[in-house]
Amino acid sequence: MEKKYAIGVDVGGTHFAAGVVDYRGILLAKNSRPTKSERSFEIIVQDIAGTVKLTVEQAGLSIGDITGTGFGVPSTIDPTTKKLIYANNLSWLNQDLTAEYGRYIPGPVYIENDAGCAVFGEVKTDPEPCDNALMITFGTGFGGGLVMNGKIFRGCDGFGIEPGHTVLVYGGRKCNCGNSGCVEAYASVTALVELCREKMAACPDSLMWESCTDPSGKRELKMAGGRTPFIAARKGDRAALELLETFTNMAGQAIANLITLFRPEKVIIGGGLCNEGDYFITPLYEAAKQRVFGSGLMPMPPFNRARLGNDAGIVGAAMLALCS
Amino acid sequence: MEKKYAIGVDVGGTHFAAGVVDYRGILLAKNSRPTKSERSFEIIVQDIAGTVKLTVEQAGLSIGDITGTGFGVPSTIDPTTKKLIYANNLSWLNQDLTAEYGRYIPGPVYIENDAGCAVFGEVKTDPEPCDNALMITFGTGFGGGLVMNGKIFRGCDGFGIEPGHTVLVYGGRKCNCGNSGCVEAYASVTALVELCREKMAACPDSLMWESCTDPSGKRELKMAGGRTPFIAARKGDRAALELLETFTNMAGQAIANLITLFRPEKVIIGGGLCNEGDYFITPLYEAAKQRVFGSGLMPMPPFNRARLGNDAGIVGAAMLALCS
Repeated sequence: MEKKYAIGVDVGGTHFAAGVVDYRGILLAKNSRPTKSERSFEIIVQDIAGTVKLTVEQAGLSIGDITGTGFGVPSTIDPTTKKLIYANNLSWLNQDLTAEYGRYIPGPVYIENDAGCAVFGEVKTDPEPCDNALMITFGTGFGGGLVMNGKIFRGCDGFGIEPGHTVLVYGGRKCNCGNSGCVEAYASVTALVELCREKMAACPDSLMWESCTDPSGKRELKMAGGRTPFIAARKGDRAALELLETFTNMAGQAIANLITLFRPEKVIIGGGLCNEGDYFITPLYEAAKQRVFGSGLMPMPPFNRARLGNDAGIVGAAMLALCS
Repeated sequence: MEKKYAIGVDVGGTHFAAGVVDYRGILLAKNSRPTKSERSFEIIVQDIAGTVKLTVEQAGLSIGDITGTGFGVPSTIDPTTKKLIYANNLSWLNQDLTAEYGRYIPGPVYIENDAGCAVFGEVKTDPEPCDNALMITFGTGFGGGLVMNGKIFRGCDGFGIEPGHTVLVYGGRKCNCGNSGCVEAYASVTALVELCREKMAACPDSLMWESCTDPSGKRELKMAGGRTPFIAARKGDRAALELLETFTNMAGQAIANLITLFRPEKVIIGGGLCNEGDYFITPLYEAAKQRVFGSGLMPMPPFNRARLGNDAGIVGAAMLALCS
């Protein structure tokens, strides 16, 4: 069968999204649902399969038109059995997604780390072809995926790379993985929100409180989100600017570490923060450039905003099936 | 010409060594000289070439028997021109080693990062063949080389990896590269000696002072070296044990970061410290194992002592010429 259409599923800690993608990488239909990760693995997969069926119908296709399904999962994956060994943000351990999903939807299943899928999607649909790109996605975690020579880089033994769980601040903040000082504990949106709340608690006059005040005038720290410091920073709020400088410098160092090790030709920045241009990507690039080893002597890869936005994972996952 | 013999030159911050190596990886003759890095690049290369000529004679060969020369240099290397872009510990910038060396010795020249050469030498002469190994050499710096699929991994753009200059302690100690908190500032022998002197200054009763006392009874901090804490630790000295625990945990985390990113099948530990078995490699392995992401769920690569010792760089450099 000619490979024309595939399903891509991007499984996140808070939401999953399923899409139908054509051979050019164009998303024909998609649906997103809350993951509700407290549910059992089996119930979540059943929910995904139901969403996939609906999405295929919405694309005007039938399951028979589909080449296969690709999954992007925030998990380490056994390179041989394809079992999900350890999905930190989903509390999944040693799950057989291929078998469980196969109970509902026929056809081959391809599974890669979510960050690997995202960069694969970006690279495979890039109008300026590039075979070597690092993508960092700022989300619940710090997602890092690398495409090298046109393929997802999964390390020597195939278990995949986990840059969010390398240590940047030895002996630092507790990370959800059990270790301390991981990149993810400083350079994810989750970490930004936490840092933001700490800064707000320390700075009662900060304009960050404006977006955390309900109509009755009640101020609630828990209303702070990833955009809170950016909104206040654009109004010149000093606390927000300081917070963002710290965050951006640390995230920039985390990326500089990866450039110093992998030397990609291009860095793609994904996740909601990538829309905060002058207040995020521009200073992030400068922070990384200052900190890369041999900076100024070797080419510094440009930082581009992810073009596919939140769809990168879906498109990349589907591309696994379409390019295999 | 059949490739039978090659020259390998390992250029270090304090010494360089030249050897003649046969196709099996056996070192037939070698000579080591102080680099005296304050000398000009041209004078150092002339000195290297003289040492090479002598070594070839000592091996009972003539220059005509030699396939080529491989160099291991602590430098980033332009993948196209092969110029030495930035050799931090030698203060070399944009030097053309091929041309300069070619003024004295004929034949093809191969240049790789010193850490890449060391791991290449270990892998190419390993009785248990392994195509994917990470080697860490504790020396003046923190040398990290990776062989992946039988080849030296040099990153996507070929400029090479520099794990010693990734940051482990954000905002930490000043590194010789200009950045702060680099792995090299905590997990090299240079760093160990510095930490040792600080600890000794704070602990006047430490047994570490025993190896820093001259025959007249005068105690000198500057007599402390890389072995000082190990000698005292073996006598049960608490200060030395504490110091080594800190050092080993930090070095272990640095290696855990690299395992989390590269997922090698084997880790080879080189440099003088690799002889401090129970007091170094064993706790280093445990420290790394505790800190690798997904530890216990995925295979943990074994830590082996470098078999070739200080000759790994020479043998690996020669192997570049013999295996090309």
